[in-house]
Amino acid sequence: MKLNILKEHLNESIQHVTKAISSRTTIPILTGIKIDVDTDGVTLTASDTEISIQSHIPIEKEGNEIVQILTPGSVVLPAKFFTEIIKKLPSSDVTIEVKDNFITWISSGSAEIQIVGLDPEEYPLLPQLEENNIVSVSSELLKTMIRQTTFAVSTSETSPILTGVLWSFSRDRLKLIACDRLRMASREAQIEAEGEIEFHNIVIAGKSLNELNKLLPDQNMPIDIVVANNQVLFKIDRIQFYTRILDGAYPDTSKLIPQSFQTHLTIDTRKLADAIDRAYLLSREEKTNIVKMTLKDEKTVEISSSSSELGKVTEQIDTHKLDGDLLSISFNSKYMLDALKVIDSDFIQICFRGPMQPIIMKPEDHSNMLHLIMPYRTTT
Amino acid sequence: MKLNILKEHLNESIQHVTKAISSRTTIPILTGIKIDVDTDGVTLTASDTEISIQSHIPIEKEGNEIVQILTPGSVVLPAKFFTEIIKKLPSSDVTIEVKDNFITWISSGSAEIQIVGLDPEEYPLLPQLEENNIVSVSSELLKTMIRQTTFAVSTSETSPILTGVLWSFSRDRLKLIACDRLRMASREAQIEAEGEIEFHNIVIAGKSLNELNKLLPDQNMPIDIVVANNQVLFKIDRIQFYTRILDGAYPDTSKLIPQSFQTHLTIDTRKLADAIDRAYLLSREEKTNIVKMTLKDEKTVEISSSSSELGKVTEQIDTHKLDGDLLSISFNSKYMLDALKVIDSDFIQICFRGPMQPIIMKPEDHSNMLHLIMPYRTTT
Repeated sequence: MKLNILKEHLNESIQHVTKAISSRTTIPILTGIKIDVDTDGVTLTASDTEISIQSHIPIEKEGNEIVQILTPGSVVLPAKFFTEIIKKLPSSDVTIEVKDNFITWISSGSAEIQIVGLDPEEYPLLPQLEENNIVSVSSELLKTMIRQTTFAVSTSETSPILTGVLWSFSRDRLKLIACDRLRMASREAQIEAEGEIEFHNIVIAGKSLNELNKLLPDQNMPIDIVVANNQVLFKIDRIQFYTRILDGAYPDTSKLIPQSFQTHLTIDTRKLADAIDRAYLLSREEKTNIVKMTLKDEKTVEISSSSSELGKVTEQIDTHKLDGDLLSISFNSKYMLDALKVIDSDFIQICFRGPMQPIIMKPEDHSNMLHLIMPYRTTT
Repeated sequence: MKLNILKEHLNESIQHVTKAISSRTTIPILTGIKIDVDTDGVTLTASDTEISIQSHIPIEKEGNEIVQILTPGSVVLPAKFFTEIIKKLPSSDVTIEVKDNFITWISSGSAEIQIVGLDPEEYPLLPQLEENNIVSVSSELLKTMIRQTTFAVSTSETSPILTGVLWSFSRDRLKLIACDRLRMASREAQIEAEGEIEFHNIVIAGKSLNELNKLLPDQNMPIDIVVANNQVLFKIDRIQFYTRILDGAYPDTSKLIPQSFQTHLTIDTRKLADAIDRAYLLSREEKTNIVKMTLKDEKTVEISSSSSELGKVTEQIDTHKLDGDLLSISFNSKYMLDALKVIDSDFIQICFRGPMQPIIMKPEDHSNMLHLIMPYRTTT
């Protein structure tokens, strides 16, 4: 294997795949990045078995030559050293050549580097997915949907299935749900798919989705989602992002949502978030995060928290609209802030069934999103 | 105690003093910030016994009223919560009032906060320094001198005196020295002082100097340095920074510096630093940081490092000038990079006495700075 390549393009591609390198892997070959060179260009691969990322560098881009292939071939190079040394090479032109025993010579300007490479035959093969089930989503929407749900996954390994986000697609609607028993976030969107595609109980680890989100571009482009038996593949331009589907059945979260409510409150999202943030500062010092919301009268909501050691925070906010019974309810303010942060609406509707019943929150101007927070059972 | 104050000024002053708050203090009152209010304005104080910082907020600045004093007085408030809540207050106007038992009421816009305060009488008094020995240095120069030496202090507590920087002043020259047995950095400068001031063996902890450097402004202003028996006070505009002088005698570092040399090398500082940085990447993976410099001939220096597991990095750089014997010497590349980073000269002069003797480095265009690095004794 021998090639000349422009440093910046190699660097960019390395940055894409290193998100799949885990420092805690027990499989030596997976500490490396696989490089495959053929007449089409250069393909880099990295994997931690949970996710695998491939990034392709073409021979040319917009008419400019990026890569010169002298001899096709493959090698696996230690990810950390390879990544750092490429970043710091003195010249923008880089020559990479694999010699005997996978010793790889990298030269750039006055610098000569020899890296002990590994046998690419030992590198695990990526899954071959049948591309029957493809849904195409705009990168901007996908990024937003992941951001609006993934924060609510469970971080506890006691029920592994809840560390994932549930994806389902039916009748042209894509729906994502995350839930950790004390809160739930769901978001859906209308997607035009070709043919009659439907999938259910596709659960993807929250951690993997956070990595995916770093790769999704801000500018809009279609992302193809390929759903297979135990893997999902996201195609982002020249990047292929594979992630494992978590084993097990996701619980039915619809039962958690009350069917009727005593009270409906509409309030300014930003003002509520800011007041809860101040009360959270105090409750966080107590390590409880408990904040109380009291509907004082039709026009006034009070947010408060108190600590015998530190003091008290109290604040009153005007309601936009309040229908139903007045009540006082305590909740985990961190969970409430997480939800308020991702709600994309100036006003929010909060529905209460009673001080011991789940709190339901929706943006005022669309029904594509729902957040649920369980109240604290306090004695006051 | 009661006052009205503009949030941004209170906030700025809090940011100054919190640098002296230690999360690991065992003295409860020192987890707080002391607030003193008198007819001159507001003074905040924080201390971790090693350093103490005072910041003063005047009644008005540039003709604008900043503080309205309603009742003078004092209180101590828990630093972390106080700092965070002030930052997040909804309005720019803040009222602070101390009521019974030091309970402190803070109000701003719709937010009402009560903080359990502590008795200011319990707060330790700051040292009263006799202002006989004052040296005035420009903030820019002081900042540079601290940055160019402090990195070389010892981080090991086995000889505490070496965790500090030695300050001396004599015949209008201020000199700073840091040394950790394997390297040394020194920097001096001409300072005009009034009267015949002289001090020696003033050792200030490197950690304290790093905190001081964060407070020194980039724009130029004179900083008064007051040296007393066991404290040094730095006066930075409205901030007073007190730091303890370390106990013990600093070793005589002049004996470390060879009096004559076999070889003098002049070389491009940036090119040398970049080449060593690449070799360092490999040696760091081996956890040795060993890099070898070989003077090949009058025109060529080779920088290299190698690792049986990872590979090899080799690079040749042109010399600017080379006089004396050729040699090959190994050293800790991290130490070399630290020194090269603070050398403010395009070319550097490196002096060698032999492969087992200290390496001396100086900027080519002035003699105010000297770096020493001990070589590694390798068998190759």
